Amino acid sequence: MRAYDIIKKKRDGQKLNQAEIISMIKGFVDNTIPDYQMAAFLMAVYFKGMDEEETYWLTDCMRTSGDVIDLEGIEGFTVDKHSTGGVGDKTSLVLGPVLAALGLKVAKMSGRGLGHTGGTIDKLEAIKGFSCELSTADFIKAVNSIGVVIVGQTGNLVPADKKIYALRDVTATVDSIPLIAASIMSKKLAVANKGLVLDVKVGSGAFMKNIDDARELARLMVKIGKQAGRKVTAVLSNMDEPLGEMIGNSVEVIEAIDTLRNKGPQSFTSLIKALAAQALTLSFGLNHSDAELKVAEVLENGKAYAKFLEMVKIQGGDVSMIEDYRKLPAAKQTLPLKSDKNGYISQIQCEEIGLAAMMLGAGRETKDSVIDMGVGLKLVKHVGDKVNIGDVIAELYVNPARDNNKAVDRLKAAIQISPDKVIPQPLILDIIS
Amino acid sequence: MRAYDIIKKKRDGQKLNQAEIISMIKGFVDNTIPDYQMAAFLMAVYFKGMDEEETYWLTDCMRTSGDVIDLEGIEGFTVDKHSTGGVGDKTSLVLGPVLAALGLKVAKMSGRGLGHTGGTIDKLEAIKGFSCELSTADFIKAVNSIGVVIVGQTGNLVPADKKIYALRDVTATVDSIPLIAASIMSKKLAVANKGLVLDVKVGSGAFMKNIDDARELARLMVKIGKQAGRKVTAVLSNMDEPLGEMIGNSVEVIEAIDTLRNKGPQSFTSLIKALAAQALTLSFGLNHSDAELKVAEVLENGKAYAKFLEMVKIQGGDVSMIEDYRKLPAAKQTLPLKSDKNGYISQIQCEEIGLAAMMLGAGRETKDSVIDMGVGLKLVKHVGDKVNIGDVIAELYVNPARDNNKAVDRLKAAIQISPDKVIPQPLILDIIS
Repeated sequence: MRAYDIIKKKRDGQKLNQAEIISMIKGFVDNTIPDYQMAAFLMAVYFKGMDEEETYWLTDCMRTSGDVIDLEGIEGFTVDKHSTGGVGDKTSLVLGPVLAALGLKVAKMSGRGLGHTGGTIDKLEAIKGFSCELSTADFIKAVNSIGVVIVGQTGNLVPADKKIYALRDVTATVDSIPLIAASIMSKKLAVANKGLVLDVKVGSGAFMKNIDDARELARLMVKIGKQAGRKVTAVLSNMDEPLGEMIGNSVEVIEAIDTLRNKGPQSFTSLIKALAAQALTLSFGLNHSDAELKVAEVLENGKAYAKFLEMVKIQGGDVSMIEDYRKLPAAKQTLPLKSDKNGYISQIQCEEIGLAAMMLGAGRETKDSVIDMGVGLKLVKHVGDKVNIGDVIAELYVNPARDNNKAVDRLKAAIQISPDKVIPQPLILDIIS
Repeated sequence: MRAYDIIKKKRDGQKLNQAEIISMIKGFVDNTIPDYQMAAFLMAVYFKGMDEEETYWLTDCMRTSGDVIDLEGIEGFTVDKHSTGGVGDKTSLVLGPVLAALGLKVAKMSGRGLGHTGGTIDKLEAIKGFSCELSTADFIKAVNSIGVVIVGQTGNLVPADKKIYALRDVTATVDSIPLIAASIMSKKLAVANKGLVLDVKVGSGAFMKNIDDARELARLMVKIGKQAGRKVTAVLSNMDEPLGEMIGNSVEVIEAIDTLRNKGPQSFTSLIKALAAQALTLSFGLNHSDAELKVAEVLENGKAYAKFLEMVKIQGGDVSMIEDYRKLPAAKQTLPLKSDKNGYISQIQCEEIGLAAMMLGAGRETKDSVIDMGVGLKLVKHVGDKVNIGDVIAELYVNPARDNNKAVDRLKAAIQISPDKVIPQPLILDIIS
């Protein structure tokens, strides 16, 4: 089976069979198929797509390209969440404890971040002593004991995706729904959770710019997951502005703690409720509105927050920093950003907000950058809010040793104010299961 | 200017500007743009095309990627021909002397072949002593003296095309009309001939399978040539079966000699007339039918054949081998291929016929293969001919030291016989100028 023939077949819009897909992926991973043939293949897939069956075969053969993690030894219903990414996304920090409080098992493997802010692991390391490096035995034991643990990814998980993604990134072949679905699902299915809740972001700040594409991606991923024998559901949520109010590391931990104490931003709390409710639907068969009530209960009665404290404790973190989060790393200075117009917030460009946060020091520009845990920003006003000249629309938490002027300008340019009233989109757009 | 952005722009169907095209090609030639980005770019061009202006920019920047040859010092109207390739194509051997006999100047640079049979240079080397390696001064002098010389390509002509073509060949991006046009025209325009006659093949044995694609390619190449200040015309000719009757090296030289003596196959002779007439139209402004009469004249009165003898002589070849071509290298054995059906020849698959010739030893399978000059085959019957059981439909000229059974089988399978009458296509399908 020659790579040339497989490229040509896809180029001509024909359906590939499983053997052809396996041959292409295996060949690329073991370096018998060169980068340039894979690049041409990916561009052909960009234009001609893949049907559900092809995408499943692709996902499955990527999934098994490295280690797979069976989660054997964890009792109960294991569940994972995946978000298609966004700015200010601290969902994992809150959702894990909430699900554990509801009796589910969350054996979460997370990554570090390259970009706007740190990843979940980086954010948790704002807590003194917190360790994400547990042995497999300790990890399983801890999950069985308290229901939720967040560790760094270990082992050689889905090397095919790493290699293919690196190539897609430089050949303008990222924006392909079957390739996105296979990339996400190969990684998620490589860990044998029973349930999976997908958080598919839609809007100007997300991969999926419109609801139709987002629905297509969500349907495809749900189908692949079910075909692999998992329980899967997808929540489509709006990402026309960053999630919640805080963007940074310490500040996102603080917002997560507030939310676990039922004092978080309304929008972020409603996303947590929708995602957690879907996990309950998958595991215990509850209908969505009953499930949302259960979730509200663990936020109100402190059980979710208590789980977070248990998790911090079992992972070696300084619990006093949670109980009094003024002890977390903090920026030395706060700069207010004031409106110079009267009107309504019409747009908050996520990508630009993220880059402003990175320029403050909240994220890594390169692998070797060191994250400044305390810096970040807060969006005080949101899309649809009325503002007058002089109103504070955002706050920047800065390190005065840096030159922060460019970040301030970038943030300012990213927030548009219109003279006309603006109706914001609802946060939860659809649920696909 | 990032390669990524140029790939994405083309992927999204936008028109590239000249600077972007130059940046892509220069970057690839000097290795600052890697193969995989060029491969993705080529596939994007395959799907989204290029308009006339983009294709001209591409052609021009490829053309100047290496040496350009000015042909300064040659007096008169220099003219070249390019064929888009086919099986049994000995056109250059005949057309050069014909054009010289008509007063034009043919400073032909040809290549060796990799594939079915040798290239023009290989075929000429069937003539003892014939040398295609002339110094530039001798080359110019010889063209001025007799009007036609055929040499091997020297210098570093259009390295961009060599590198891009090698990549297209393994990434299924050959069949793109703008890429084909730019590849051909960059090489043709790198040599400063005044006139250019393009022979665009159409049919099952050609790159262009249908007349519409062939017309599009021809129009595009003519337009590019004119924009570069050359006189260009294109003849569209049928390639549903090999050109003429002979496929091989010596045997094609023999068929060329027969044609120059006005005793060649009717179809091949009519192509020579059409191409030569177009060259006269370009150079002296004759109308096509007057021009064809002039061509017929030099075939009938022996002037074209005399030019061939002059050319062989000036290039050091043994003229007695032309005067008595039984002296040319010949195969040891002739095998007849007989029909096992009554009916009409309905299809002769060019590609398969070519491969059969290669299996006999007539072509190079790899760069290091040695061509067996005497072997080859003759198609006795043509599309539309009536055949009865036992009629000889082809002859194979073989070297008995080889195992030729597979070649015989391949040849047999390539010639289809139908019970119904078959009307062959005319050879000349259109002229575009």
